[in-house]
Amino acid sequence: MIRVAPSILAADFSNLAQDIKNVEEAGADLLHLDIMDGHFVPNISIGPPVVAALRDKTKLPFDVHLMITQPDKYIDSFVKAGADIITVHAEACTHLNRTIYSIKQHGIKAAVALNPATSLTVLDYILEDIDMVLLMTVNPGFGGQSYIKSMTRKIRSLKNMLDERKLIVDIQVDGGINTENIKEIIDAGANVIVAGSAVYKSKDIRATINSLRMMG
Amino acid sequence: MIRVAPSILAADFSNLAQDIKNVEEAGADLLHLDIMDGHFVPNISIGPPVVAALRDKTKLPFDVHLMITQPDKYIDSFVKAGADIITVHAEACTHLNRTIYSIKQHGIKAAVALNPATSLTVLDYILEDIDMVLLMTVNPGFGGQSYIKSMTRKIRSLKNMLDERKLIVDIQVDGGINTENIKEIIDAGANVIVAGSAVYKSKDIRATINSLRMMG
Amino acid sequence: MIRVAPSILAADFSNLAQDIKNVEEAGADLLHLDIMDGHFVPNISIGPPVVAALRDKTKLPFDVHLMITQPDKYIDSFVKAGADIITVHAEACTHLNRTIYSIKQHGIKAAVALNPATSLTVLDYILEDIDMVLLMTVNPGFGGQSYIKSMTRKIRSLKNMLDERKLIVDIQVDGGINTENIKEIIDAGANVIVAGSAVYKSKDIRATINSLRMMG
Amino acid sequence: MIRVAPSILAADFSNLAQDIKNVEEAGADLLHLDIMDGHFVPNISIGPPVVAALRDKTKLPFDVHLMITQPDKYIDSFVKAGADIITVHAEACTHLNRTIYSIKQHGIKAAVALNPATSLTVLDYILEDIDMVLLMTVNPGFGGQSYIKSMTRKIRSLKNMLDERKLIVDIQVDGGINTENIKEIIDAGANVIVAGSAVYKSKDIRATINSLRMMG
Amino acid sequence: MIRVAPSILAADFSNLAQDIKNVEEAGADLLHLDIMDGHFVPNISIGPPVVAALRDKTKLPFDVHLMITQPDKYIDSFVKAGADIITVHAEACTHLNRTIYSIKQHGIKAAVALNPATSLTVLDYILEDIDMVLLMTVNPGFGGQSYIKSMTRKIRSLKNMLDERKLIVDIQVDGGINTENIKEIIDAGANVIVAGSAVYKSKDIRATINSLRMMG
Amino acid sequence: MIRVAPSILAADFSNLAQDIKNVEEAGADLLHLDIMDGHFVPNISIGPPVVAALRDKTKLPFDVHLMITQPDKYIDSFVKAGADIITVHAEACTHLNRTIYSIKQHGIKAAVALNPATSLTVLDYILEDIDMVLLMTVNPGFGGQSYIKSMTRKIRSLKNMLDERKLIVDIQVDGGINTENIKEIIDAGANVIVAGSAVYKSKDIRATINSLRMMG
Repeated sequence: MIRVAPSILAADFSNLAQDIKNVEEAGADLLHLDIMDGHFVPNISIGPPVVAALRDKTKLPFDVHLMITQPDKYIDSFVKAGADIITVHAEACTHLNRTIYSIKQHGIKAAVALNPATSLTVLDYILEDIDMVLLMTVNPGFGGQSYIKSMTRKIRSLKNMLDERKLIVDIQVDGGINTENIKEIIDAGANVIVAGSAVYKSKDIRATINSLRMMG
Repeated sequence: MIRVAPSILAADFSNLAQDIKNVEEAGADLLHLDIMDGHFVPNISIGPPVVAALRDKTKLPFDVHLMITQPDKYIDSFVKAGADIITVHAEACTHLNRTIYSIKQHGIKAAVALNPATSLTVLDYILEDIDMVLLMTVNPGFGGQSYIKSMTRKIRSLKNMLDERKLIVDIQVDGGINTENIKEIIDAGANVIVAGSAVYKSKDIRATINSLRMMG
Repeated sequence: MIRVAPSILAADFSNLAQDIKNVEEAGADLLHLDIMDGHFVPNISIGPPVVAALRDKTKLPFDVHLMITQPDKYIDSFVKAGADIITVHAEACTHLNRTIYSIKQHGIKAAVALNPATSLTVLDYILEDIDMVLLMTVNPGFGGQSYIKSMTRKIRSLKNMLDERKLIVDIQVDGGINTENIKEIIDAGANVIVAGSAVYKSKDIRATINSLRMMG
Repeated sequence: MIRVAPSILAADFSNLAQDIKNVEEAGADLLHLDIMDGHFVPNISIGPPVVAALRDKTKLPFDVHLMITQPDKYIDSFVKAGADIITVHAEACTHLNRTIYSIKQHGIKAAVALNPATSLTVLDYILEDIDMVLLMTVNPGFGGQSYIKSMTRKIRSLKNMLDERKLIVDIQVDGGINTENIKEIIDAGANVIVAGSAVYKSKDIRATINSLRMMG
Repeated sequence: MIRVAPSILAADFSNLAQDIKNVEEAGADLLHLDIMDGHFVPNISIGPPVVAALRDKTKLPFDVHLMITQPDKYIDSFVKAGADIITVHAEACTHLNRTIYSIKQHGIKAAVALNPATSLTVLDYILEDIDMVLLMTVNPGFGGQSYIKSMTRKIRSLKNMLDERKLIVDIQVDGGINTENIKEIIDAGANVIVAGSAVYKSKDIRATINSLRMMG
Repeated sequence: MIRVAPSILAADFSNLAQDIKNVEEAGADLLHLDIMDGHFVPNISIGPPVVAALRDKTKLPFDVHLMITQPDKYIDSFVKAGADIITVHAEACTHLNRTIYSIKQHGIKAAVALNPATSLTVLDYILEDIDMVLLMTVNPGFGGQSYIKSMTRKIRSLKNMLDERKLIVDIQVDGGINTENIKEIIDAGANVIVAGSAVYKSKDIRATINSLRMMG
C-alpha cells in the first residue's frame, strides 16, 4: 500500500491551515514537514513554533524531517509540537543509535534519512531499530533539482537488504518524483512518497494523490 | 515619533496572512520578523520561504531580525524575500563592517542587534554606518522572560553616545515590553518598539498599538 | 576579609578525599574546582562525576570554574554534583545574561571569569547580576606561567568600577599568586585567592593559608 | 584467553588509588580509562592530569579510551600520562590512518572504537594497522543503558572479517555486559571485556572477574 | 595509458612559472595543485590567487585537489582561476552529490578523493557521476610519509568495482610513489600518478616522467 | 619615521622572487605576507611552504599577517618559515595573551590586528605586551574595497591611548591607502603602511615608496 506525504515546502506559508486542510481532505496520508536550520542544508524553513501552530488544524500524522545538525537538541521540541514520526539524517548523527532511541522513548516513530551519495552501509546496525528509511532522491535544501537516476538502484538495494533480513521498514523517497518516474520508484520498493507542488498546485488534488498511489 | 513593530513570533503561524493584515490595518509601522536558526539561539523559527510568502500580503516594511550565525550567507535570500531592514547580531559577525556594507549594497537599511550583556563598545566603529541599533531587552530565542532592568541604563547610554556624536540612528528594543515599563524605555531613548502577544492577542489591536506609542 | 580557595589542580588526583580533607582542616574557605574540556582550554581535567564523588567528603563550598565551551549544557550536571558557585567565562558565552540567570535559578551563586587580555567592558551590563568576577592572572589551561603584571591594574580598574556603581561583588584571582605578589594583588582589590601547590605541598597548610590571608 | 578491563567510571573518584589497587589485586588485566570531553559525548570525565596521578599506583596496563573530538591533539599528553593502549573513535577521526600511526610511533598499542550504529566498513583499510577494535555495546557517554542486542551480530561479523583476512586483532566490548549476556558476547568473538560497577561494587571482586572470564 | 601529474608542492614557490614550464616541456600530462586550508589538513598551501597567477604560464590542465573543508564555497573561485578538474574529499562533503554536480555545471571535470582509511563504500552512489577517484596513498597534509602498503589492495578493489559496473573512471594516486612501487600500483589499476620531488628535482625531468609512465 | 610594507597580495605569484627583489631594491622596509585560510576570511592565499620558499630571496623582514582562525597552531610553522613579526587577529584569539607570549618566546615580534568594526577596548590589557597594532582599514579577505573613513578616528584614538600610557607601539594600517588619504592617515598616528598594487605595478617603485613615506 503506497502512502502519499505532501511536503509543506510546496504549501502557501501565508495560510498553512488552508493548504493542509486541502491535502487532508484530498486523501493525503501524512504531512511531511521539512525542517531546515541553514547549517545542515543551505536554507532555513520552519521550526517548532510553526509545527505546533498546525497541530490542531489537521488529523494527519506529522512526519517531521529534520534537515538540521545536532538533531538531539530539538527532539523534545518537535514531539511537543506534535510530531508522529521524526526523521534524522545519518550524516548529522554521531550517536545515531542514541538519537533513534531518544525519539522512540517519546512513543513516536523514528526514521533515518540518507543524502543521495550516502552509502547504505550506514544502516547496517540501525535498520532493526527504525520504522522508516528516507532516501533523498534529490539533495535536501537545494532548489530546482531533478530525480537522481541512480537512486532507483539504491531503493532496490535497500529493499533487498530488508527482505534478506526479514525486516518490515517503510521506504520513503523525497525529491523530483513525478508521474513519469513514480512507477519505477515504487517498483524498486518505495512505499511512502513525498510529493511537492505537483500535489498542492494541482486542480484536482485528490486525483493527483490517487494517481501517485495507483501508478506504482 | 515612536514606531511599533509587532513580532511575527506572536502571530498565528497557521494563518499569517490574516494576522499580518490585522496588525497592518490597526496601524503597525513595521513587521518584525524573528529569524532563528537553532544555532545562534536555541530555537528554530522561520526562514526565507516563509518571509517570501508574506511579501505580497502586506505593505508593511519587513524588519528582519537575524538571530542566526553566519548571517552573510543569508542576506541575499532575505533581500529577495522582501526585507526592508536587516538586523544582524554583533555577536555573530566577525567582519561586521563588511556585513553591514553587504546589506546596504542591496539598497535596504542595516541594523546591529546586541544581546543584553553585550557592551556598547562593540558599536564604537560601526555606529555611523547603520540605520538602527536593536537592544535586546530579553535574551533572544529563550521563552518566558521579563524585561531586564539594566537595559534602561543601556538604552540611555546608547542615546548619549548618539547625541554626543550627533548621529541619527534608531534605537529599537525587543523583549518584555509592556504598559508598565514602556514609559521608562521611551524616556531613555528607544523609538522603535517590538511588541508581541500584547498586540496580536488584544481585543482592540489599534488601541494597543496606539497606547504603546502614546505612553512614551 | 580575604578568602582562600585551594585549586583542585594541585591536589593528588589519586586520593582527592584526603587532600581535600587536609585543606578543609587547615582552614580553606572554598574548594576551587577547575573544569577543563580540552576545547576552551588545551587540557582536560575533571567533570561532573569527579565533582559528585567529592561532595560528601567535605563541607567546603564548591567553587566550580568552568573552562569549557557551551557551559549552559553542563550547569545542571554541576549543580547536581554539588556546586555552590558556578563561574563561566565571558569568552565562552554568547548569551551571558541567560547563562548567569540559569545558574542563579538553581539557587546558587554565579560568577564570570575573564581571560587576561579580555576587556572589563564585557562586564558593563552583567556586573549587577553576579556574585563574583574571576580575573585570570595567568592564561587558563596552560602550564608553567607567572602572574601577568598588568593584571594588578585590571584588578584595580574592576574595583573602581564596582565602587563607582556601589556594587558588592567578590573579586577572585587565579594564577601565579605567591607570597611576593599577594600584597599588591589584595591592595588592588582582590578578596578571593585561588591557590595551588603552594598550599597543598606546604608542610604547614594552615600557616600557608593564613599567611595568604594575612599578607593582604 | 578472555581479559577483563574494569572501567574507571565505576570507581570512587575520591580515592582512585584504593579502588585501582583493589581491582589489580583481584586479577584485572587492564585498567580501562574513559576520557570524555563533553563534545564527542555529552559528559566530561577525566583527562591527562588524573591519568598521570594514577600511573605509579598500579602496574596494570592503561587502556585509554578517548571519547573526545580531535584526539590527535591529546595523544602526546596521554602517552606522557602513562597510556599503554590508546583507543580513538572512528567517528572523531578524519585522518584515521595518521592518528593510528601517531599513536604507534610512541611505541604503544593503538585501537579504534566504533559507536553502536557505525558500520564495520570504516575498518576496511585500517584493520591491519591496529591492535584492537573496541565495539561500543551501549552509546558512549550516556547513562543507564542496556546492552544493544544487535551488537552480538556486529561482534560476529568483525570476528569473521578478521578470520577471513587472517588478522590477529583484539575485540573489546564496552557497555551493559553482565553475567546473563557474557557468554553470547564471548562466543561471538569478543576477548576483552570492559566491566563497570559489577566489578567494583562486588563483595568478591576476584570471583566476579574470574566469573566474567570463565563464562565465555 | 598512464598520465603523470607533477604536484605543485614540490615546485619552487618563489618561481612557479619556471618550474611549471619545466615540467610542461618535459611532457607532464596534468599539473596537480594541492590546495590546503589548515583545517581539513594541518597545513596551508596556496589558494585561488596563486592558481590564477599560473593560468597563463602553461597549457597543462589544472588538476585542483581541494584539501579543504566546505569546498562548495570555493568551487567558483577555482573555476575562475582556471581549474580543469576539481577534486573534493568525500570526508569534507555532507552533500557530495550536490558538490559534484556544482563542479560539473561549470563544464569541468569532477573527482572525489579518499583518505587512506576511508572505505570505498562512500563511492557506492557517486561513482557513475564522476570522472576520477583520487586514492590518497599517504595522509594528505602531513609530511615525510611512505606509501601505505594496504593502498594497493584498495586500488585493486576500486578497479574491480569499476569493471563490475562497466564504468570508465580514472584512478589517481597521490603520495609516496617511486620507481620501486610504481609497477605494483599501476598493475593494481591506477592510471593517473601524482609525482612530487622525484620529478621536479630530477636532472632529466623528461626521462623521469617517462620512466613513471613506462614502469606501469 | 614612516615604514612601507608592500603586500605580497599584489605581487605576481608566478614569480615572487623577482617581485620581492624589486620592492627590496626600491627601498621597502618590510614584506607584508597576507596569510588567509578561507575560514577567518573568505579567501585562501598562501601558507608556510610559500613563505619558506621566499626566505632566502630577500633580506627584508617578514611581516606575517595571519588572517586565520586558531593561529596558535601555525606559529611554529611561520617562525620556521622565516617570520620576523607575526600578527594575529584579536577576533580569532580566545587566549590572546597566551598567543602573543607564544610568538615572543620565539624571539620575534608580536602584533595584534583589528577588523574595522572591532573596538579598541580589546587592546586594554595587551597593549603593553605587543610591538605593533595592525588596524585594518578595509575588511580583510574581501576584494575591491575603499579606505573606511571612520578608521582615521580609530587611528587617532589608538595613538592617544598609547601616548596616555607612554607606550611605544607601532601602528600599522592596511587597506585602500593611496596618495589622497595617506597624509590624513599618518597625521592621525600610523607609522607602518601596507601598500598594494600602487607599489608593485608602479613604473618607478622607489619613487612610489618614497612618496608614501614623504606624504605623511
